[in-house]
Amino acid sequence: MESYGYLFDLALILIATKFFGVITRKFAMPQVVGALVAGLLLGPACLGLLHETDFMDRLSEIGVIVLMLTAGMETDIVELRHSGKSAMVIATCGVILPLFGGALVASLFNGNGGQAVLQNYFVGVLLTATSVSITVEALREMGKLSTKSGNAILGAALVDDVLGIVALTIITSASDSSVNMLLVMGKIIAFFVLSLVFGVFAHKLFERWMLFYKNEKRRFAIIAFAFCLIYSYLAEAWFGVADITGAFIAGLILSNTTRVTYLANRFEILSYMLLSPIFFANIGAKVVIPQMNGELVLFTVLLTLVAVVTKVIGCGFGAKLCKYSNQDALRIGVGMISRGEVALIVANKGISSGLMKEEFLAPLIIMVVLTTIITPVLLKFVYRQSEEEDLQYSPITDQYEEIKNMDLATQTIADINDHARKKNEEKLFRRKKKE
Amino acid sequence: MESYGYLFDLALILIATKFFGVITRKFAMPQVVGALVAGLLLGPACLGLLHETDFMDRLSEIGVIVLMLTAGMETDIVELRHSGKSAMVIATCGVILPLFGGALVASLFNGNGGQAVLQNYFVGVLLTATSVSITVEALREMGKLSTKSGNAILGAALVDDVLGIVALTIITSASDSSVNMLLVMGKIIAFFVLSLVFGVFAHKLFERWMLFYKNEKRRFAIIAFAFCLIYSYLAEAWFGVADITGAFIAGLILSNTTRVTYLANRFEILSYMLLSPIFFANIGAKVVIPQMNGELVLFTVLLTLVAVVTKVIGCGFGAKLCKYSNQDALRIGVGMISRGEVALIVANKGISSGLMKEEFLAPLIIMVVLTTIITPVLLKFVYRQSEEEDLQYSPITDQYEEIKNMDLATQTIADINDHARKKNEEKLFRRKKKE
Repeated sequence: MESYGYLFDLALILIATKFFGVITRKFAMPQVVGALVAGLLLGPACLGLLHETDFMDRLSEIGVIVLMLTAGMETDIVELRHSGKSAMVIATCGVILPLFGGALVASLFNGNGGQAVLQNYFVGVLLTATSVSITVEALREMGKLSTKSGNAILGAALVDDVLGIVALTIITSASDSSVNMLLVMGKIIAFFVLSLVFGVFAHKLFERWMLFYKNEKRRFAIIAFAFCLIYSYLAEAWFGVADITGAFIAGLILSNTTRVTYLANRFEILSYMLLSPIFFANIGAKVVIPQMNGELVLFTVLLTLVAVVTKVIGCGFGAKLCKYSNQDALRIGVGMISRGEVALIVANKGISSGLMKEEFLAPLIIMVVLTTIITPVLLKFVYRQSEEEDLQYSPITDQYEEIKNMDLATQTIADINDHARKKNEEKLFRRKKKE
Repeated sequence: MESYGYLFDLALILIATKFFGVITRKFAMPQVVGALVAGLLLGPACLGLLHETDFMDRLSEIGVIVLMLTAGMETDIVELRHSGKSAMVIATCGVILPLFGGALVASLFNGNGGQAVLQNYFVGVLLTATSVSITVEALREMGKLSTKSGNAILGAALVDDVLGIVALTIITSASDSSVNMLLVMGKIIAFFVLSLVFGVFAHKLFERWMLFYKNEKRRFAIIAFAFCLIYSYLAEAWFGVADITGAFIAGLILSNTTRVTYLANRFEILSYMLLSPIFFANIGAKVVIPQMNGELVLFTVLLTLVAVVTKVIGCGFGAKLCKYSNQDALRIGVGMISRGEVALIVANKGISSGLMKEEFLAPLIIMVVLTTIITPVLLKFVYRQSEEEDLQYSPITDQYEEIKNMDLATQTIADINDHARKKNEEKLFRRKKKE
């Protein structure tokens, strides 16, 4: 009889993630934080209203794939080359330090024997990926997005994502101890090299195909989705590489095509209407609070501290290497602190592959929430001193505005349509009256 | 290891349904037909690439709920009252005749003992719901949508959907023989009466809430979705009424709110990006061809004939009752022939509740495909003779254009955005060159 119970669960997830998302937004935090809180509340840790099911797991996996696809599409490869060396240096320093810092903290609580080493480095990987959206929002509000430091943050965050994916790929592939490490590395290299060769070709093919039509077509989004799913599948099936890596690369291939704004808009709708609420709720439903003892609290505190400090020092050091001023180096470091969905996505992957200890999930989520909360506060502080700014133009800045504009414009059109309809109805009504 | 195999299945579904959808579109048939063909090909009846799984079943159930929600939202209740009596009379005659005609044909092959009576009437219910989209397309192409007969078809098709839902509700609720028939009818009546009372209230609440904001907001679509899911759930859980009935009523409640175009657009995207391909593929995957023997072929032929003839005569008779000319009565009858998603959705419901004999599925699908193919052909024929037409204005006609316009406008905006970005990039490039 209760075969339709999942309808109610789904409704609950949609309402709760939106409700808490709106609340966190009110406090100038990203909606992700609210969605996570909703998941925690609904999950077994608090109310116990949601239960992990195979259905939710699969749907949340598709959600993750769509999120990574979008992340890839928003990574402007051409811009990556433009912003070039300094972004690369800043990002690399800002990835290496958290990687080893995270592994060190984990080893204090997890030991160093056998599988533990991989588990510790996995915690390090979790600390690598910056989630730049909150920084972008904060800088935009302050009108500091188009500054020298703002551009450096955006560029470095792009490279950061790619480096994080590489680190994830290596560690997940290495986790299967039954296979030869040399073979694993060979497969990873083969995957990236083949992706590069095939990617250039596929990118051109997509561009030509999509330009063949004068207008945007549904088929663009549908075929792009299928392409991404196949890429994810083959990454796992042929190369032993995580499916989310495949999805990210598929996104990279689609980025910089003429229709990418249309595609991103479609996937965003698919994501917020169904998939990403399920993902966040599912993450929340995996957290088990009773395991939080004194040791884990200490771990949480240390993890958060290390996450903040290693990013600020790593990126700041990278910025100094690139001859940024002390002030800008600090700003860049602070701008890279916040972690977000990518850390959660990677953690989710780690749990299903056994690389992530389940009791590390709650500390990780707390770390994500805390870094997200403090980043805008610290940003306001480090940007306060400046009186005059060298405003810099960059196309990346634009791209973040576009999808927003598109949504807004769609709204306007809906308004116009509704207005026209109302007017027509009145016309008809008057005509009927006359008769 | 094959835990990620469903990613590949999903990609296959997306590609195949789109591919065949585009092909059928080329032949002036709706994409639904192509999607069905894709499902048949991928399913166990042909290639056997897809298998019914719990995951696909649930996702396709959500897809059906979204389809019915959209159908409800597109049913303009105010217009229903406007188009009033004649639409009501035409639709009622066009529902009663197919209902009994279908039951009669089924009884020839299924007998009349015990459960068989319900199964036969279920076949009748399957024949009731007209799918007007193909007729709208055909009439629009011929420029006959805003004629007296065109308006009558649209109005009757709206009423038709509601009557079909009522018939479905009664028969599915009656299928559980363990309960008292009086109680069942009482519950159905309670459901509709409470829906009416609550609906008026909820409609006003939604309208006020959505008008509270100046712009369209994501939360409108998300909360509307959650509302629909809860309505569907409660219909099943409290009243024993099919969840799709609940979804349709939820759509009715949302219809005629100021933001309905925005909502419909969002659900359409969710639908074509993921849910409805899965639904059609899943329907196709339920068909088992080897059971098609001579008797079933005869059944298929009779079913299709009865579907066509009862609609034409039923609706035509209704139109004559309302004093339409002979020519217009024929046109209205022909315009109501085509069956589509609603018949399939109801069939799907019937299979899971045991009311629908599985071997009737293939004939039903063939009937849907055939009526869809012949409707535009016959329409061209019956509309050919007319030289001058009394063009009539109606707000329903507009509504069918709106969502299309909205999609088009979104495309234009994407173009503008892309263009602006390209220009910016060139600007940057030139600036860099100067430096």
